[in-house]
Amino acid sequence: MSELVGNLLVAQSGGPTAVINASVAGVITEAGRHGCIEEIYGGRNGILGILNEELLDLGDEKRAAIEGLRHTPAAALGTCRYKIDFKKKPEKAAKDMDRLFEVFAAHNIRYFFYAGGNDSQDTSHKIHEEAVKRGYEMRVIGVPKTIDNDLPHTDNCPGYGSVIKYNATTVMEVGIDVGSMATDDGSCCIIEVMGRSAGWIAAGTVLAKRGNPASPPHIILLPEVPFEEDKFLAKVKETVAAYKYCIVVVGEGIKDTDGHEVGADKTRLDAFGHAVLAGAAEELKEVIQGRMNLKTRTVLLSYAQRAAAHFASGTDAKNAFACGEAAVKVAVEGQSGFMVKIVRKARPEGGIEWSTGLQPLGDIANVEHFVPKDWISEDGFMVNEKFVEYARPLIEGEVRVPTEGGLPKYITLEKSPVEKKLPPRA
Amino acid sequence: MSELVGNLLVAQSGGPTAVINASVAGVITEAGRHGCIEEIYGGRNGILGILNEELLDLGDEKRAAIEGLRHTPAAALGTCRYKIDFKKKPEKAAKDMDRLFEVFAAHNIRYFFYAGGNDSQDTSHKIHEEAVKRGYEMRVIGVPKTIDNDLPHTDNCPGYGSVIKYNATTVMEVGIDVGSMATDDGSCCIIEVMGRSAGWIAAGTVLAKRGNPASPPHIILLPEVPFEEDKFLAKVKETVAAYKYCIVVVGEGIKDTDGHEVGADKTRLDAFGHAVLAGAAEELKEVIQGRMNLKTRTVLLSYAQRAAAHFASGTDAKNAFACGEAAVKVAVEGQSGFMVKIVRKARPEGGIEWSTGLQPLGDIANVEHFVPKDWISEDGFMVNEKFVEYARPLIEGEVRVPTEGGLPKYITLEKSPVEKKLPPRA
Repeated sequence: MSELVGNLLVAQSGGPTAVINASVAGVITEAGRHGCIEEIYGGRNGILGILNEELLDLGDEKRAAIEGLRHTPAAALGTCRYKIDFKKKPEKAAKDMDRLFEVFAAHNIRYFFYAGGNDSQDTSHKIHEEAVKRGYEMRVIGVPKTIDNDLPHTDNCPGYGSVIKYNATTVMEVGIDVGSMATDDGSCCIIEVMGRSAGWIAAGTVLAKRGNPASPPHIILLPEVPFEEDKFLAKVKETVAAYKYCIVVVGEGIKDTDGHEVGADKTRLDAFGHAVLAGAAEELKEVIQGRMNLKTRTVLLSYAQRAAAHFASGTDAKNAFACGEAAVKVAVEGQSGFMVKIVRKARPEGGIEWSTGLQPLGDIANVEHFVPKDWISEDGFMVNEKFVEYARPLIEGEVRVPTEGGLPKYITLEKSPVEKKLPPRA
Repeated sequence: MSELVGNLLVAQSGGPTAVINASVAGVITEAGRHGCIEEIYGGRNGILGILNEELLDLGDEKRAAIEGLRHTPAAALGTCRYKIDFKKKPEKAAKDMDRLFEVFAAHNIRYFFYAGGNDSQDTSHKIHEEAVKRGYEMRVIGVPKTIDNDLPHTDNCPGYGSVIKYNATTVMEVGIDVGSMATDDGSCCIIEVMGRSAGWIAAGTVLAKRGNPASPPHIILLPEVPFEEDKFLAKVKETVAAYKYCIVVVGEGIKDTDGHEVGADKTRLDAFGHAVLAGAAEELKEVIQGRMNLKTRTVLLSYAQRAAAHFASGTDAKNAFACGEAAVKVAVEGQSGFMVKIVRKARPEGGIEWSTGLQPLGDIANVEHFVPKDWISEDGFMVNEKFVEYARPLIEGEVRVPTEGGLPKYITLEKSPVEKKLPPRA
């Protein structure tokens, strides 16, 4: 494989995570090790910024800022929810693709890395195929990123370990709080977590139990298990009878037996046409208070859970960085059209040896990966030891975040714009 | 003052905090230094447990457990929302008081410490007065505790520094997240925090700005300022025009100009007759989406904020411990009928020298302390430099929390019950 000389472009897409910047730091760090990579550019707000020729000169950033990306949450380059939709809007998509390649050519982009979830891997896949079709020599590698953990083929997705570490900690803390207030009147607290139609995030809070059945969470409602109100209320009642309180974790995307989302606000759709979900806990609270007269409070962590870099997983941050590094390494070696995946290998002496591998983007795009049925308890209200064995290593280790005046010290990039060479996007 | 020999009883009341156990650790530690204190007991679930003669033998706890209380959230002894209500239920209150003194006498309780907020200081005050009236020699000292920071006369209340440190961190993190997604469409995120009718907790999130007007939070809605929908929407619009996104922090107890709570669920009251509040953010979201068509998401931290010991304030935890120590010290010296207060003294070389003082319980009970008018910005949507100067030192320093498998390692007490000597409560 001949050496490909040119510029690198990295961009971030979709919902941010606590460690997506660590992947960008990995890309930049590794890029610095290869002479064939001339300039290192970032796309402002993902594909949307690239379409607008808004490129950032990452070579201009201070070394300390790149290092600081390893503990700074959210998308330092900016992100977007823009989708190049070949199915529903083929003409607009074709136009977008033309524009992208105009930008790539104008800036001699020969390495393109896109960190994102399902939709973004689809975008990378399309760009790779177009590059091949157009005979434009460019290496395209997807970098996995999603708190939802629903990408197939990778052991886990960067962002997931951190979100479940923070959420499990929150469940522990809220559980101790509610438990310490528990009297014979009983009480219930419902904690709603993200994850859309996959239950990985909700399931991950099982780690708060640390093997003790009496410890919270007492009930985990997974989108993978159809919600049945009567069975749920019976389980809450049983739990309060045993422990005087009940901590419920609910995935935002739970559906009833007819497939309707519980508490979904169906009037609003995001740019990908998905319903905006944020009402399951409130809906359940009303059900419990209405039918059981049990004092119930809700916690809606929302964005706080995916941005909580002050208590991110060391393992997750390391893997995220490694994914960025690996993407550049394999691209320089000549690969294109793959997503980096995380590979787990149990060490004979105990512990996990993490490494990276490659999976064709065509295998990833728009495939959703759910919590396996045999990792869910028989009654459907908990995950079992198989899940715990999977998830436990993902939250190990801490990320040292410097503080200033008692608050975390996160970095912001300079974001020097790269001079535009094209007329504005039509 | 003659030495008073006998047993000590400490109990916790009201909503837990991240550092209320640090105060109990202070009480136990200091008690161990005085020979006149024979047994160290805890009341299970506050006054309610004492009425039921449910005492715990804290002398039986391991030294490491007492040390662990300094970083363990919630009420390790259990807490309650039980009120001895002399005004509304005088007969029941008199009966309760008789029973309390039966329990005190049966167990030779000569030192009584109650950690709590306004209502609990009122309870301590009544118990002190009753002891004097009955000629039962007992020293009663209130230990301040409330995340709401609404106790008068003390510089701040243990629990407050930790809640605003965590909330300001969350606002920073959510702010970076939402900001990194901000495109020309604009977006809004509303973070609801606790504090009931006082705005201290909401105001404390101003620290997330670190002096930068462009940084979140962009709007803080305090219960001290009547909510006006049109002015609020104009401010959101102005903010989104300037920064493409808007982070709003709202205190749960905000009221409109008619004095009606915004988003209160008026159908439910707690044991003290206060309305259960948990709907302001959702209400504001509906207003914004309905009248501005701006994508808006909410975060409801609820119990998570007051239990977040994984990122508590070192200053707060130290002051909480000092309050517990001071309570025992002054009681042994002969004082009774006071609450320990926290005193701030600016060091000439910079920084704060924290100490404790005493305030008669009669000055504290049922007096609410609000954010001063001249600490609030002219437009009512922010607090000013005076507030920042007050709050900044309260979040300084971290508490070292040990971890195990990636999660905080909190302790639980053995809670050996003290043998009962009385017939059950009638």
